[in-house]
Amino acid sequence: MPAPADQQIQQNSETRQDRGDYTIGDYLLDRLAELGLTEMFGVPGDFNLHFLDHVVAHDRVHWVGSANELNAGYSADGYARIRGIGAFLTTYGVGELSAINALAGSTAESVPVVQIVGAPPKDVQASGRKIHHSLGDGDFKHFVRMAAEVTCAHADLDAATATWEIDRVLREVVFRRKPGYLMLAHDVAEVPTFPPNTPLATDLVQTTPGAEAAFEQAVRRFLSGRRAAVLADLMVHRLGATEQLSAMLSETRLPFATLAWGKTLVDESDPHFVGIYAGAASQPQVREVIEEAEALITVGVEYTDNTTAGFSMDLDAAKLIEISRFGARVAGEVFTPISLEVALQVIHRVISDLGDVEAMPHETAEDPTTPHEPGEGALTQDALWSTLASQLESGNIVAADQGTSYFGMAAHRFPASSTFIGQPMWGSIGYTLPAILGAGLADRERRPVLLIGDGSAQLTIQEMGVIIREQLPAVVVLVNNDGYTVERAIHGPDQSYNDIPRWRWELVPQLFGAAEGTYRYHRVTTEAELLEACRDTMAHRDQLVLIEAITARDDIPRLLNDVAEALKR
Amino acid sequence: MPAPADQQIQQNSETRQDRGDYTIGDYLLDRLAELGLTEMFGVPGDFNLHFLDHVVAHDRVHWVGSANELNAGYSADGYARIRGIGAFLTTYGVGELSAINALAGSTAESVPVVQIVGAPPKDVQASGRKIHHSLGDGDFKHFVRMAAEVTCAHADLDAATATWEIDRVLREVVFRRKPGYLMLAHDVAEVPTFPPNTPLATDLVQTTPGAEAAFEQAVRRFLSGRRAAVLADLMVHRLGATEQLSAMLSETRLPFATLAWGKTLVDESDPHFVGIYAGAASQPQVREVIEEAEALITVGVEYTDNTTAGFSMDLDAAKLIEISRFGARVAGEVFTPISLEVALQVIHRVISDLGDVEAMPHETAEDPTTPHEPGEGALTQDALWSTLASQLESGNIVAADQGTSYFGMAAHRFPASSTFIGQPMWGSIGYTLPAILGAGLADRERRPVLLIGDGSAQLTIQEMGVIIREQLPAVVVLVNNDGYTVERAIHGPDQSYNDIPRWRWELVPQLFGAAEGTYRYHRVTTEAELLEACRDTMAHRDQLVLIEAITARDDIPRLLNDVAEALKR
Repeated sequence: MPAPADQQIQQNSETRQDRGDYTIGDYLLDRLAELGLTEMFGVPGDFNLHFLDHVVAHDRVHWVGSANELNAGYSADGYARIRGIGAFLTTYGVGELSAINALAGSTAESVPVVQIVGAPPKDVQASGRKIHHSLGDGDFKHFVRMAAEVTCAHADLDAATATWEIDRVLREVVFRRKPGYLMLAHDVAEVPTFPPNTPLATDLVQTTPGAEAAFEQAVRRFLSGRRAAVLADLMVHRLGATEQLSAMLSETRLPFATLAWGKTLVDESDPHFVGIYAGAASQPQVREVIEEAEALITVGVEYTDNTTAGFSMDLDAAKLIEISRFGARVAGEVFTPISLEVALQVIHRVISDLGDVEAMPHETAEDPTTPHEPGEGALTQDALWSTLASQLESGNIVAADQGTSYFGMAAHRFPASSTFIGQPMWGSIGYTLPAILGAGLADRERRPVLLIGDGSAQLTIQEMGVIIREQLPAVVVLVNNDGYTVERAIHGPDQSYNDIPRWRWELVPQLFGAAEGTYRYHRVTTEAELLEACRDTMAHRDQLVLIEAITARDDIPRLLNDVAEALKR
Repeated sequence: MPAPADQQIQQNSETRQDRGDYTIGDYLLDRLAELGLTEMFGVPGDFNLHFLDHVVAHDRVHWVGSANELNAGYSADGYARIRGIGAFLTTYGVGELSAINALAGSTAESVPVVQIVGAPPKDVQASGRKIHHSLGDGDFKHFVRMAAEVTCAHADLDAATATWEIDRVLREVVFRRKPGYLMLAHDVAEVPTFPPNTPLATDLVQTTPGAEAAFEQAVRRFLSGRRAAVLADLMVHRLGATEQLSAMLSETRLPFATLAWGKTLVDESDPHFVGIYAGAASQPQVREVIEEAEALITVGVEYTDNTTAGFSMDLDAAKLIEISRFGARVAGEVFTPISLEVALQVIHRVISDLGDVEAMPHETAEDPTTPHEPGEGALTQDALWSTLASQLESGNIVAADQGTSYFGMAAHRFPASSTFIGQPMWGSIGYTLPAILGAGLADRERRPVLLIGDGSAQLTIQEMGVIIREQLPAVVVLVNNDGYTVERAIHGPDQSYNDIPRWRWELVPQLFGAAEGTYRYHRVTTEAELLEACRDTMAHRDQLVLIEAITARDDIPRLLNDVAEALKR
């Protein structure tokens, strides 16, 4: 039985024989749809309007107009983190450059996003004249060269090779889990072509039997009789190996942790979950299990300054099995080519076979979300995050902006099947507001929750209008603490440059278009008020909820304090 | 007597002998101040916080925190158009890339802006580790290479050469009237150095006496007995030659026009001003004078698609004297090197000498702003722009966003000593909102006026918070016409992609922090209401005024119609 994608492609080739109606633009849209895309973000511009006619006419892809291009790129990134592919459309020059920070973020955070840029017709480019949205110097390649710096694949599509090039770039994007860039000249998009008639192959063989056998032998020798633990990270999620990891963990019963970058890729409600490992900023019991394991199996781990409190991890290579995307190491010895999935299978098999691999002794992760009497005093950051964490539900998609929200929430246990979205590597403040829109549209069955500070929200606030237009029942927790508190923690606590204009956040839903009765607003200054607001949030599952949480200017969560100290060094 | 800059530099070298206190960061700030900068825009980030300590401590440079980095870049551009130099500060990666569209715009529109990027310490970069705000691939040069595509000069500053490199980049920026980029690593900014002790030379000799003499001879031969007219454009303003042009025009009494890019560089209230030349989209009387002159003297003219209705100008090279930055042509013959200023002097001198150069017969520009009874019917675009034009005052700085606002206002005569800011070449919608903030801060004596559509304002609305915090008495005319009307005019008038979320614009001042009684809001739907709102605006000169002007979705000004038709072809 053909897969759904195959069926659709068969249908394509059967029903669309009229070459005149089917364009290169349609081909691109069909390929994106085949990869699972049903929403495209972006902003219209005069060089993409004709292609947009095809977007809005497409039977599976829906257009989601963004308030600006950076936000479109962020939304596509959030969408791709849930859906496995994302795309956004901008116009040439002005549009694409506004969004290029989002594209770079997708590279840093390994997110498969495609940027499509509507460009001037080829003959207009060839004229070398002063065309608007260009630099006026006759060089129309400046921006594709810029995109090349921050993408894994790019093409300035030419009619004769466009379908081949589209396939090449999309294949790279999906295989490498990095963004790609397609420059689609106005006239090229309109050129007639034929629909694809074979599915796009996006995977490549990554394992050699010899490497697998040698790795298995080494693992067997290494693990036998050792007390082991597992440390997993982001790439497990990106490579689609979470199920496999989860199977291995539940059967071997080894204790496990993730770095904050990989938060929620494992079930944090599992008694064998010990917590988030963050080098010297870890909880002591997490540090002990991870750093003192006789065998630590790291899976898809990439150490960054922010997730390790400045590379403060204390790990002995001689005690490690390190599984990464294309290869693995056992006590430093390299085995390659072997894919992460195959390496995981090997580990799983060997542990089951051996029967003498013990779990590192561990306590279940401390649950700071244990119910207690809510405090009546001023809301603290610690109370804010633990209360919110206690109210999360399975299925929630939680985006936490790279400030107190991220560091505050990363330390808390999440319910099973929830998803945490952060950007600890790229760390672009304001990212999460459009990203939660994208993530929410990628799966309308799951309620999106946004945690963001006032400083960050100011960068991208206009996307609230799109959240409202799309009737997304998002929960927005706006931490009003009078400026860039995360920067104050690093340097200049009382400096004016960490101040921001004071806004009246309670007007946000109305200004951005929410009709009376379609949203909830709460201003909370105590834990009790916050809890009450959370209850009201649950009672209004189909509505937008804005919770403005007031916390003291200099109050920061513990993890941020530790990381800030590390970054100061 | 030394110039003020010299005095300040003397003072620098006399008073700041303590090397330990004076850093490379201070040197950069002193150079910028010497060039006339007193405001720096930007957003703090962990790699620029220490440099920011020096910014806020500087005695002449003031920090203006922006809501996001793109807006900071736009503000710096608007500032530089008035002040002659602008600067903004961002952090590495996330910050700089968010703003890179603004930098590209400054290149396209010839605006001298300096972007300063606070970067990770040199040794951290050299480590090649996964540092936040980098792509994580160990290459810390991606972004400087991207900046190189859209700037005229750039440097990744190194302690040993930093002061020399700062001087080199600033000199290029000022001389070439294009933006520059300085990557300032956290540690480099802190290295002790000495203040500059000579002013920065920013000009170069551009004229050779032989070329000047040959040009004069050719001009003399060419102009004698001809009926002449003058067409001027943007570069006259950028090169600081407006006074010289004005002197030539007032003494020779030749009729003159500008392209829309150069709007307000000449006195539009002068009876010899015939209007805006826009190729086939010109008013007939403008077209006649310019295209039928026996001798047309073009000064600093650069033809772009948007300012010429798709290069529809009908000019005969045999009838032209073309003066540009580094050279001139007489009926096609090239004379170089000769500066624009010197060429203007030559023209002026020759016409005075000859006595037989006649003015092309011309009518004074039609004044569509003649007072009349205000209409009571629904406000039309034509009535909107002519009414607003009639209410402008000498000294106003008027920024019109690249939609109906720009095309609507460009066609109207402006009072003497007013300034029109548009972006016909780069055309980045949303630009003007942060730009009017920059322009307004560059000269607090002049009231800033912003003309912007609802679609454009959504891109950059958060900068209203900074306009309010800075207590700028701006007049904001928000054209509420339900979406991207400029795009509807080009393609897809009824397509959903030209719709935008509907906002409640009347809440803008409150949400973004304006206290009750410190601003005025008017919603106008007729010409009479608009006129009343304008009167109220005059009566509240120290307040922010928001006028929400409601016009029909598909109503567009005539010039836009002509240009849109040309762009469709």
